[in-house]
Amino acid sequence: MKAAILGISGYTGMVLLRLLSEHPDVDEIIPVSSSKAGDKILSADPGIGKAVMEKTAASDGCMVDMAHAVKRKPDVVLAALPHLASAAFCDPFYGKSVVIDLSADLRIKDHGLFMKAYKTAPPRPEILEKAAYGLCEIYEKEIKSSDVIANPGCYPTCTLLPVLPLAEKGVIQGKIITNALSGISGAGKKATIGNLYVERTENTCAYLPGQTHRHFTEIKKEISSFDSSLELYFTPHLVPLKRGMHAASAVELKSGVSAEKIDAIFAEYYSDKPFIMLKGSALPETRDVWGSNRCDIGWQVQGNMLFLFSVIDNLVKGASGQAVQNMNIRFGLKESAGLKMYGEL
Amino acid sequence: MKAAILGISGYTGMVLLRLLSEHPDVDEIIPVSSSKAGDKILSADPGIGKAVMEKTAASDGCMVDMAHAVKRKPDVVLAALPHLASAAFCDPFYGKSVVIDLSADLRIKDHGLFMKAYKTAPPRPEILEKAAYGLCEIYEKEIKSSDVIANPGCYPTCTLLPVLPLAEKGVIQGKIITNALSGISGAGKKATIGNLYVERTENTCAYLPGQTHRHFTEIKKEISSFDSSLELYFTPHLVPLKRGMHAASAVELKSGVSAEKIDAIFAEYYSDKPFIMLKGSALPETRDVWGSNRCDIGWQVQGNMLFLFSVIDNLVKGASGQAVQNMNIRFGLKESAGLKMYGEL
Amino acid sequence: MKAAILGISGYTGMVLLRLLSEHPDVDEIIPVSSSKAGDKILSADPGIGKAVMEKTAASDGCMVDMAHAVKRKPDVVLAALPHLASAAFCDPFYGKSVVIDLSADLRIKDHGLFMKAYKTAPPRPEILEKAAYGLCEIYEKEIKSSDVIANPGCYPTCTLLPVLPLAEKGVIQGKIITNALSGISGAGKKATIGNLYVERTENTCAYLPGQTHRHFTEIKKEISSFDSSLELYFTPHLVPLKRGMHAASAVELKSGVSAEKIDAIFAEYYSDKPFIMLKGSALPETRDVWGSNRCDIGWQVQGNMLFLFSVIDNLVKGASGQAVQNMNIRFGLKESAGLKMYGEL
Amino acid sequence: MKAAILGISGYTGMVLLRLLSEHPDVDEIIPVSSSKAGDKILSADPGIGKAVMEKTAASDGCMVDMAHAVKRKPDVVLAALPHLASAAFCDPFYGKSVVIDLSADLRIKDHGLFMKAYKTAPPRPEILEKAAYGLCEIYEKEIKSSDVIANPGCYPTCTLLPVLPLAEKGVIQGKIITNALSGISGAGKKATIGNLYVERTENTCAYLPGQTHRHFTEIKKEISSFDSSLELYFTPHLVPLKRGMHAASAVELKSGVSAEKIDAIFAEYYSDKPFIMLKGSALPETRDVWGSNRCDIGWQVQGNMLFLFSVIDNLVKGASGQAVQNMNIRFGLKESAGLKMYGEL
Repeated sequence: MKAAILGISGYTGMVLLRLLSEHPDVDEIIPVSSSKAGDKILSADPGIGKAVMEKTAASDGCMVDMAHAVKRKPDVVLAALPHLASAAFCDPFYGKSVVIDLSADLRIKDHGLFMKAYKTAPPRPEILEKAAYGLCEIYEKEIKSSDVIANPGCYPTCTLLPVLPLAEKGVIQGKIITNALSGISGAGKKATIGNLYVERTENTCAYLPGQTHRHFTEIKKEISSFDSSLELYFTPHLVPLKRGMHAASAVELKSGVSAEKIDAIFAEYYSDKPFIMLKGSALPETRDVWGSNRCDIGWQVQGNMLFLFSVIDNLVKGASGQAVQNMNIRFGLKESAGLKMYGEL
Repeated sequence: MKAAILGISGYTGMVLLRLLSEHPDVDEIIPVSSSKAGDKILSADPGIGKAVMEKTAASDGCMVDMAHAVKRKPDVVLAALPHLASAAFCDPFYGKSVVIDLSADLRIKDHGLFMKAYKTAPPRPEILEKAAYGLCEIYEKEIKSSDVIANPGCYPTCTLLPVLPLAEKGVIQGKIITNALSGISGAGKKATIGNLYVERTENTCAYLPGQTHRHFTEIKKEISSFDSSLELYFTPHLVPLKRGMHAASAVELKSGVSAEKIDAIFAEYYSDKPFIMLKGSALPETRDVWGSNRCDIGWQVQGNMLFLFSVIDNLVKGASGQAVQNMNIRFGLKESAGLKMYGEL
Repeated sequence: MKAAILGISGYTGMVLLRLLSEHPDVDEIIPVSSSKAGDKILSADPGIGKAVMEKTAASDGCMVDMAHAVKRKPDVVLAALPHLASAAFCDPFYGKSVVIDLSADLRIKDHGLFMKAYKTAPPRPEILEKAAYGLCEIYEKEIKSSDVIANPGCYPTCTLLPVLPLAEKGVIQGKIITNALSGISGAGKKATIGNLYVERTENTCAYLPGQTHRHFTEIKKEISSFDSSLELYFTPHLVPLKRGMHAASAVELKSGVSAEKIDAIFAEYYSDKPFIMLKGSALPETRDVWGSNRCDIGWQVQGNMLFLFSVIDNLVKGASGQAVQNMNIRFGLKESAGLKMYGEL
Repeated sequence: MKAAILGISGYTGMVLLRLLSEHPDVDEIIPVSSSKAGDKILSADPGIGKAVMEKTAASDGCMVDMAHAVKRKPDVVLAALPHLASAAFCDPFYGKSVVIDLSADLRIKDHGLFMKAYKTAPPRPEILEKAAYGLCEIYEKEIKSSDVIANPGCYPTCTLLPVLPLAEKGVIQGKIITNALSGISGAGKKATIGNLYVERTENTCAYLPGQTHRHFTEIKKEISSFDSSLELYFTPHLVPLKRGMHAASAVELKSGVSAEKIDAIFAEYYSDKPFIMLKGSALPETRDVWGSNRCDIGWQVQGNMLFLFSVIDNLVKGASGQAVQNMNIRFGLKESAGLKMYGEL
């Protein structure tokens, strides 16, 4: 298989490069960087290691431009580009390669909602129309048969995986109050004062609470597609982690729904999923999934209240790892190929 | 003034020592450590600095035992000792010195609730009966006239300061959903695997959610004393901070309560308080109060939902700093004497 | 292949378990823990993931005791046990399995030196006598033909890899002044005050400088075996890293030795080694090798002074990864099997 | 006293603001920011707290421009501005106010050396000529009588304090090999990729080793002024600290110099200095001085080698705190006024 990565200098591009450099089914990596075409990958990213040199022999270990990438005819294109730039940038590949877009451009089919979140119309509405929403454990069937896959955001992935089965089964009601904690890499590799080491270490804060964060819209439309009566309030926080995400949701159970019922629903949906670890009443830690593509889920019932806890590595299951998982599913590979099951110590 | 500190080798004892070593009204510090009496403070705690040597000249810069402390007749005793040991340990001082207890022993007057949280009866019920609850901004009057002050816990301080004025004014209703994030020093200076650097850096998790944490009881009884109809669900988290605490609470406003009304309530209660910084709709960061005795509070109204955010340094306003503030209030000193107003960068 | 891991609850045992759980040539893992035999691995170590469950099916996903391990007749035994306990603990396996000992017990053949470093005689002198020193890039030949391999320490691995080729070629002289920085996991998973998060974050210090650290002896004996005229002063430091090690050495070049000569020596020794990345005058960062089995080496000549810089992940190339590399070499597997080439972002 | 701070939005300016906001002898702070004049300080720097509001009542809690600052006729001007901009920016104040410059502009009197380090001629040679080098413990006499004080860099302060007394007494010889570790705030509040949280946490590296760092020149000229025969090799490192600096130097003792002699020299120079803590053979930790203006020094003799260890808070004793100490000395205030003696836990 030949895989092109668009935008290999950002954090999600760097993780894609790492995962594919050791993926057993990928023979050639086409590393696209418009601004650095011609430069050695290893100079730009000294951590990447020798494996990438072998898989990029076709470009002599160098980054390439789009023209070169198109000529190499990749089987799959993984776009790790900024929101509102990504979908259009992929134009040369639609219809020729499978496109997996890590940006938000193809995630929200309702134009009004897209406009609300991104203050502009969706950039490629005709592509958006047919894109599968690549939340792998929920939309496997759609992913298998789609040539364009919109990779979900990290906050939506972490928040939705515990909530959607319960929404679909109709066992919860009223307001979902979610507090999510994100590692700093979620902000991307952007040189801003707010992302400096000195600003973020020994510091934590909430931001854009309730219904004001862009990802609120993405999360809400998914929940609504299963149960439109549920309300959502979503408050993200920054915590001094390099990588990692933790979501805590509180919601009321419908009358008569038992703790055992919740256990059974999770078992039904997830017990055979390689990357979901069900912990029951034990609470997950972000460290348990650091570097892996897992989502660990724990829950507790107290009276009529249900507390849900889920963790992911925001750069892996929350971005690049899930993109590889989507690639694996779409191409009929082993779902876990090239992805780690264990969390780094 | 002569001040005795009981238990100077734990984190709260160490911070008390630092604050009093530069407090303008404290001339003599009596540094009590049962296990290390006779040892030099500066050897046990190399960070403490030369100021403590001057103020402990009476014991030649050494830690002392209880017998010595009693003989020095301190004006105030600050007890930084473990729960269920502290109140009894202070026996020699009741009636002679003002006692400020940083443990939970004297915080919950209802024996049933105390039993629920600590699995045993309160150790000194007769002292408990007359102890003031030292949440300075709320109970100033009681603190001024009491010789025993129960210094509140860090989670209660951070959670209650934004909630109590609203509870008293009767403008909120139903369930308060609180998610609190604590720095690791909140766990104390105990050699456990769970507190190791390698376990806690690059890691975050929730623990004892809903109504299971000990401090839930302390927080709930305070809220109930103003409005017993309010429910509380409190979920603490560990985040990789050395020091710092962040509380986010979501609650419904009663019908007809405007955002302006909330602003007015906070202004009425707190605008003249030296350590409360009202931020309106801006959200506070823990870094802003690191090392200070401040509590910064921000809030946002969305529809009928109110989101409250508050931050403290868990070792200062959440423990030792508030203890000094209690001392200042009780002895008629300047409320901010010896306490910092700024957060360390 | 069947591999037994002795001591899977410490940090090096945990990393061994992770590496072997995804190693393509290991079919069965025998996870030994004397104190926890019978407990589920996944409960004790929630981060390990589902792959370990498949490879430990023989013990139903549980940890086992030594008797069980002996019965399973492992091809290789990886001992992640404390110094002075490890070599004796491996008694049942000598002569039956290949033993790779991660402790210091079999590293120093000179009894006097061993005694100096560890204050006691070596525990298994007859085994020690025939053990290969498993510094893979230097002793590949010995490793291939030995049934007992003493896996080097992290400080020796990081310090020696840049120094030994130069010592062997006789191009440096006089005093080597080494300053090494270690991540906190180097101290092991021990519940001590000194290893607490609050003690180690925002803190750095040197300890046991010059010729006082145990690993000084291990490093010095290796250097001396190539050039006994060289002196060594080695000062370790603790820095707030979870994982990672950085060594900086300053040494005089012999008269007439050019920078090009140094470049040539490194190229001769290391250009075909999969885990050595030669960076020339660029300086390596610990992040570049985080999670990988690499050692990146940079150097600069200024006048007659040579400055050497090397980085490893102390838990991988400095411990468990090198142990797997030794296993790979010894059993004729691909040297990089089951080991990562890239550093985590 | 009236004190103007030039450049209050950088890290050193922010620390100056904090220190002066609680300094007992400073009544008015004139907070200069060319780009933000007219904005509220508290909005730009929410951590600063209410004390700054009282001391900036003259500008209504707002930042001011240079014209305003000149009109207020400050007694002292503390310039926290970039190298090569600072000295010229202070033009309106020379001869009217005492100027304490935290930049490098006035530190190196030898034009050739300045040119070597900064690639340009010194910007105000006539001011440079008469500026005192504000290393307080060494140049107290010059500081007392000078109206322009060049505040030393953090690396020079930390490296020089242990070395200069030994150089002056002539007890060391040959090469001084210094390895220094710096917290990330040393790089200033600049939005660069290299300073991002994700780049610097869990990462360490050396940079500009030997004789290539700018501060090498500043350190070398000071050492040479006491003993020009000493050589210096200085290798700085970045470690994941917000604040803190650690210097480790190795150097040969001259023949016949005993460990006791070294002890005696340090005692003679520093035992009466409020901010120097002599630790003998105990090794200092950066945490011990975090937030304080201290420099803690430890040392060990092994054979004819001397190992020196010193720690400071790079933003306090390494910048803003030493500037306040210089102000205190120059104006005849208590040397420790407004400066902390203890390290934050």
